[in-house]
Amino acid sequence: MNIIKPTLIVDKEKAIKNIIRMKEKIAKSGPIRFRPHFKTHQSARVGEWFRELGVTAITVSSVDMALYFAQNGWKDITIAILVNKGEIHAINRMVEQVDLNLLVDSVEMAAFLQQNIKGKIKGWIKIDTGYHRTGIEHNQKKEILSVVKKIKKSPKLRFIGLLTHSGHAYHARSTKEVKEIYHDTVHKMNDIREYLKANSISEVEISIGDTPTCSVIDAFYTIDEVRCGNFVFYDVMQRGIGSCKEEDIAVALACPVIARYPQRNEIVIFGGAVHLSKEFIIKKNGQKIFGLAAMPGKSFRGWEHTLEDTYVSALSQEHGIIKTTNHFIQQVNVGDILMILPVHSCLTVNLMKQYYTFEGEVLNTLLIRE
Amino acid sequence: MNIIKPTLIVDKEKAIKNIIRMKEKIAKSGPIRFRPHFKTHQSARVGEWFRELGVTAITVSSVDMALYFAQNGWKDITIAILVNKGEIHAINRMVEQVDLNLLVDSVEMAAFLQQNIKGKIKGWIKIDTGYHRTGIEHNQKKEILSVVKKIKKSPKLRFIGLLTHSGHAYHARSTKEVKEIYHDTVHKMNDIREYLKANSISEVEISIGDTPTCSVIDAFYTIDEVRCGNFVFYDVMQRGIGSCKEEDIAVALACPVIARYPQRNEIVIFGGAVHLSKEFIIKKNGQKIFGLAAMPGKSFRGWEHTLEDTYVSALSQEHGIIKTTNHFIQQVNVGDILMILPVHSCLTVNLMKQYYTFEGEVLNTLLIRE
Repeated sequence: MNIIKPTLIVDKEKAIKNIIRMKEKIAKSGPIRFRPHFKTHQSARVGEWFRELGVTAITVSSVDMALYFAQNGWKDITIAILVNKGEIHAINRMVEQVDLNLLVDSVEMAAFLQQNIKGKIKGWIKIDTGYHRTGIEHNQKKEILSVVKKIKKSPKLRFIGLLTHSGHAYHARSTKEVKEIYHDTVHKMNDIREYLKANSISEVEISIGDTPTCSVIDAFYTIDEVRCGNFVFYDVMQRGIGSCKEEDIAVALACPVIARYPQRNEIVIFGGAVHLSKEFIIKKNGQKIFGLAAMPGKSFRGWEHTLEDTYVSALSQEHGIIKTTNHFIQQVNVGDILMILPVHSCLTVNLMKQYYTFEGEVLNTLLIRE
Repeated sequence: MNIIKPTLIVDKEKAIKNIIRMKEKIAKSGPIRFRPHFKTHQSARVGEWFRELGVTAITVSSVDMALYFAQNGWKDITIAILVNKGEIHAINRMVEQVDLNLLVDSVEMAAFLQQNIKGKIKGWIKIDTGYHRTGIEHNQKKEILSVVKKIKKSPKLRFIGLLTHSGHAYHARSTKEVKEIYHDTVHKMNDIREYLKANSISEVEISIGDTPTCSVIDAFYTIDEVRCGNFVFYDVMQRGIGSCKEEDIAVALACPVIARYPQRNEIVIFGGAVHLSKEFIIKKNGQKIFGLAAMPGKSFRGWEHTLEDTYVSALSQEHGIIKTTNHFIQQVNVGDILMILPVHSCLTVNLMKQYYTFEGEVLNTLLIRE
């Protein structure tokens, strides 16, 4: 592979391993549906890797993404964002062909769907178990019950269950803390299920989603569906949280070196905010990290372990500054290629839009018009 | 205009005013070339707005962007990133048709160009006046002289002058500080010019670039070229630095409201990191701001002044959380549209790829394959 500008590479073998590991943990845990989130890879071809491993149900983060994967043969899709009224026509385009799962967190939204959906959909109630982004707060049980009843009364909506995303797990500082969030989430969701059961709502599924909790727990219990997505590629942020080991990170941005400044131990790459995104993690010493750097593998196959004391310290639109050691800078020349492990693979994939496997497969996100 | 999902709008009138204001300040300052940076808008059509106002020379941030604008009739282009050796073939594709200005900061790179360029190019030496991204440090005068001599010896390269980008002006806390950076930059650049003159290098242009300094100074002096770019649209970050007034910000992302939580004074919009970018500024109280919110103007023409105590406080992939007041939340319903002024317009435009004027013009960046 001849890299001439920032190029996103996925190590397919690692990605497949990540899928199999998560799938097996779920299977081992009982009769739980695996509904991976496809917003990380956004690619029909990567979708096929999941399909070949037996996945039939998926999660997406937008109506456009649902349309794209519906066009690519997916028949069971959850749009994991509250219904955007303005997109009701686009939603209706899919209703006949796809088992469409929509998120609702108010009686008003259930009424809106009953009035405007042309066909039948499955309804989930979005529950806020602590992330405080969207959803009904887990302790507002009466409100949850009234939305369930509204959905159950609608001939167009079929109530399936309760859905949550523990996004606050991304802010955890240790795997112990992540595990606590998992147990807390499951406890809160089951608590609502018990309440609904006491109110004659007997069939209630529980769906959970985030990559940190799904990665660090040993087994799932008392839930019915798992929707994590980032785990297929992982990234530096997930490694920081403890969701994965460095060896599990399956994507890297190959970047040409355009300058080196030994007097300040800095290397400058062509590769910036429009390639990696401005997502960062903060080291204990307060230093922002926008990516980690590694050498390409032999014959440009894979990449080495990340370099010690070497990281992307700043990004502008097209430039990345790598802070490194005096030892390493002596080994790098202008024109060389460095592999940058991204902090947030979802955002990097979204920016790059087209990426490649070492086997030469070209992977396009839905943003590429083919 | 019927907004159904996150949609980037440019107020053409404001953008044109921004271009005219900068152009007139430059013209008033003397015989200085205006070479605006096109990385902010990345659009051939917006390029025409500049052309109609008499602009003939432009700056771009990548070889791909240079190729795109060359295809759209631009004949005098500076690629404002150090030469990336791997793209030499793409550079050579333009050399015959375009007056190509390239940046060099080493004898090695000058030698590489002499060996590999198929035609003639103009060479600028990148000077580091304090940003510490790329360039030869301003006080390394002997090194600068040796690169000038190397360029002058090459029959394929024509030495034009010294170029710098005072990116550290983005970190300034006051317009006074920004002005100081301008004077410091100009002083350092002229100091090098004097040194070169004393060494028989008589014709040396000086090119400067960043939007903050170009916006806050009253007039330019002792320079030959101005390359700022962000000023065409400005953004919340530039307003924070003092480069512009809120009324000068010419782009806003129209976003549908998908949820409201009066108990915590939060509104959730469909509009996230894949639309706005994760760039933020930090308020005095430590709060991160990822955008400011305003109501759309009457008949969806323009937008109102930004709402008091209302800002985007967090972004995930597709969601934005807006912190607001109890007063305002009572006026907003799910399904309404809010206008979000972006923190960094360059990154938002790059993510959105397609944007619109209120007059119905469709503006595409080079990332859209037409």
